[in-house]
Amino acid sequence: MLSKFKKHLEEQFSKTLTRKILLAVSGGVDSVVLAHLCRQAGLDIALAHCNFNLRGEESEGDESFVLELADALETEIFIEGFETEAYAAGKKISIQMAARELRYNWFRELRETLQFDYIFTAHHANDNLETVLINLIRGTGLEGLTGIPDVNDCVIRPLLPFSREEIEKYARGQELQWREDSSNASTKYFRNKVRLEVIPTLLEMNPQLLESFAKTRSHLQQSSQLIEDYVSVIFPKVAKQEEYGYSFKVKLLQALPSTKAVMYELFKSFGFTEWEDVHGLLESQPGKIVYSKTHRLIRGREDLLLTVVSPLEDKIYTIKEDEEVVMLPMGTFQFEPAEELEKSDASVIFLDRDKLQFPLTVRKWQQGDYFYPFGMKGKKKISKFFKDEKLSLPQKENCWLLCSGQEIVWVINYRADARFAVEDSTQEILRLSYTP
Amino acid sequence: MLSKFKKHLEEQFSKTLTRKILLAVSGGVDSVVLAHLCRQAGLDIALAHCNFNLRGEESEGDESFVLELADALETEIFIEGFETEAYAAGKKISIQMAARELRYNWFRELRETLQFDYIFTAHHANDNLETVLINLIRGTGLEGLTGIPDVNDCVIRPLLPFSREEIEKYARGQELQWREDSSNASTKYFRNKVRLEVIPTLLEMNPQLLESFAKTRSHLQQSSQLIEDYVSVIFPKVAKQEEYGYSFKVKLLQALPSTKAVMYELFKSFGFTEWEDVHGLLESQPGKIVYSKTHRLIRGREDLLLTVVSPLEDKIYTIKEDEEVVMLPMGTFQFEPAEELEKSDASVIFLDRDKLQFPLTVRKWQQGDYFYPFGMKGKKKISKFFKDEKLSLPQKENCWLLCSGQEIVWVINYRADARFAVEDSTQEILRLSYTP
Repeated sequence: MLSKFKKHLEEQFSKTLTRKILLAVSGGVDSVVLAHLCRQAGLDIALAHCNFNLRGEESEGDESFVLELADALETEIFIEGFETEAYAAGKKISIQMAARELRYNWFRELRETLQFDYIFTAHHANDNLETVLINLIRGTGLEGLTGIPDVNDCVIRPLLPFSREEIEKYARGQELQWREDSSNASTKYFRNKVRLEVIPTLLEMNPQLLESFAKTRSHLQQSSQLIEDYVSVIFPKVAKQEEYGYSFKVKLLQALPSTKAVMYELFKSFGFTEWEDVHGLLESQPGKIVYSKTHRLIRGREDLLLTVVSPLEDKIYTIKEDEEVVMLPMGTFQFEPAEELEKSDASVIFLDRDKLQFPLTVRKWQQGDYFYPFGMKGKKKISKFFKDEKLSLPQKENCWLLCSGQEIVWVINYRADARFAVEDSTQEILRLSYTP
Repeated sequence: MLSKFKKHLEEQFSKTLTRKILLAVSGGVDSVVLAHLCRQAGLDIALAHCNFNLRGEESEGDESFVLELADALETEIFIEGFETEAYAAGKKISIQMAARELRYNWFRELRETLQFDYIFTAHHANDNLETVLINLIRGTGLEGLTGIPDVNDCVIRPLLPFSREEIEKYARGQELQWREDSSNASTKYFRNKVRLEVIPTLLEMNPQLLESFAKTRSHLQQSSQLIEDYVSVIFPKVAKQEEYGYSFKVKLLQALPSTKAVMYELFKSFGFTEWEDVHGLLESQPGKIVYSKTHRLIRGREDLLLTVVSPLEDKIYTIKEDEEVVMLPMGTFQFEPAEELEKSDASVIFLDRDKLQFPLTVRKWQQGDYFYPFGMKGKKKISKFFKDEKLSLPQKENCWLLCSGQEIVWVINYRADARFAVEDSTQEILRLSYTP
């Protein structure tokens, strides 16, 4: 098994051979075998063990066991205890989900602070088949049927080609010690049912089930790859990069041979899940929006507009008196004294210094905001101004206001306010330029 | 159920509503329900029943039953008896495979002779889930996981969205009669095991299993469609139509992002199954060939050459004396008397009529063939001639010889033989032209 393991590493993960690896170890046979194999293959590993404090003395026993294991393997070990039940209750998620979140968060934290290159976990072929069957039973797609990925970001699962049987045989052959996990079967209802009832029946029908499954998985991974390739051909054809994100021409999307399926592939990486709604945007009125956790897709006149849901939105930034260059998240402001008005464009305005009330503020617009557009008589609602200027929703949303007290000085990059304009009586002219 | 059935037909198979349909009926509940539903939906159906003579009296009982059914539904019925066991033994295939072949062959025959537009079969959602699980257990790919197709050429399965439970409930509700199939459980080992052991366990885990599966299937069908779309984008980029089939530039195939997966998709419709060999052609020496049942893929110098495995190859065609226009499978020959030699190209030669010995023959070349190339001194092996002319393997294979007795008159479309050339002494000049 060691030589098969080494060969697999060399073929698939040769870059890991000389790197620093954090190995997730529960104390169970899978992770113990993985630790031994890595050590024998000469990899630079450290162990990481989570104590979820879910099984009292047994959890403590696991912890002592992995300490001894680290000792025997002469590797570093990191151990962290978690209040898993409290965390699960606080976040209203299952114990399993909580343990999973806590584990991966801590691993990632360890990895960043201590500069590990990769995290290894001991998932094997049976885990993978179980996952795929669970996905199939619950309803899934191509991705769900390819199961646990061999590589996911910095997490690598080098035991995926090995069966539980192979792993246990190796452990017995090498006379390794490990801990049996007696965790409450009811929390693992689905997986245990698949493991103990479904898979044995399937194995009676095909004793080579795991080998067949490995081939199936490889075929599905190739199919998946082809779809990825196809989408990377289509993306630049239908999408255009914009200041606010991307726009997608509705007509081009509709002209594709399998519009709905392509839209699923195009938008899934932006976190969208409501596929009927996403697809429905093609036929809906301008202004309709579908949200994902991180993005929003807006129906424009002839486009779908994709923008990040901005975390900046409620913030108000201030600009103090006498600052010359002010760098804020949306862009840079530069104040300079000027002798006279020059020709300007949308990114430069000239102000009467004495009319400004410092500190100035920069904020997003709100319903009800109004200003006195320079070059016009009287006041106008910002919303009306945007409408007349035919701004798209993301353009509106990305628009910032420069304010003096409650008054708007500049709809940044669009129009100055007449109240702060330079007049014959102006003593001091301020030139203000903005770069996004 | 009738309204759901009508809706499904209208949405998916509206073209069938006014056509002539042949409905495969075993006498089991599925096909009986399908027949009733079709009749009530006002479709123009006739029944077709196969008696496989595998269950003695029971088979006879089925036959009488479907006769009565046709009577009650006032539809035409076709019944055919088969010697299934003898057929299976003769072809060395399983009884199930034999029944399947006999059934579909007969249906297609009936369809063609009696001008039916479609064949309906009564496969339902449970059949489909069983098929997918069997495929998964045996090892499969994306296609195997999408299961039984709704439409396959002229065969349509309009009950696929319905569960066995729905169908039986409808049958009981309408007080329909049907026949229970007691066919030998051992020949249906796999399917019965999946139906009676696997699926019940899965249903305990997810009572909505069939609905989830329908969604999974629709996702996989979309993935499958995307791959088809992608391949239809790639095909014209890497393939060039040739007289003998297609050529594929090796460099272009190698430059694709997922060469192996694309090659699988490109060549599977030509019947290839030996994927390692097909992919291996990219790296192999010119001349290497991989065969499918219908095609062959040949490694050329810079291309892969795809040709049909020709059924013409061993045939010898004859051309009688005094025929002016002779149409043969490979092309048309036209004989005309000529006064003098004209300028000619590869498709026209001039012969000394008196040197020919009729009937002439047209055949493929064989190892050992030689001729006296016009314009050269002495004789040359055909194989050497081809090599010197740098012909590709499919070009060689598609090359025909015109012979007079044992002597070669013309390597058609390439070179005439000097022995039959027009001389000063020629009495009668024959102009022979060839159009592929």
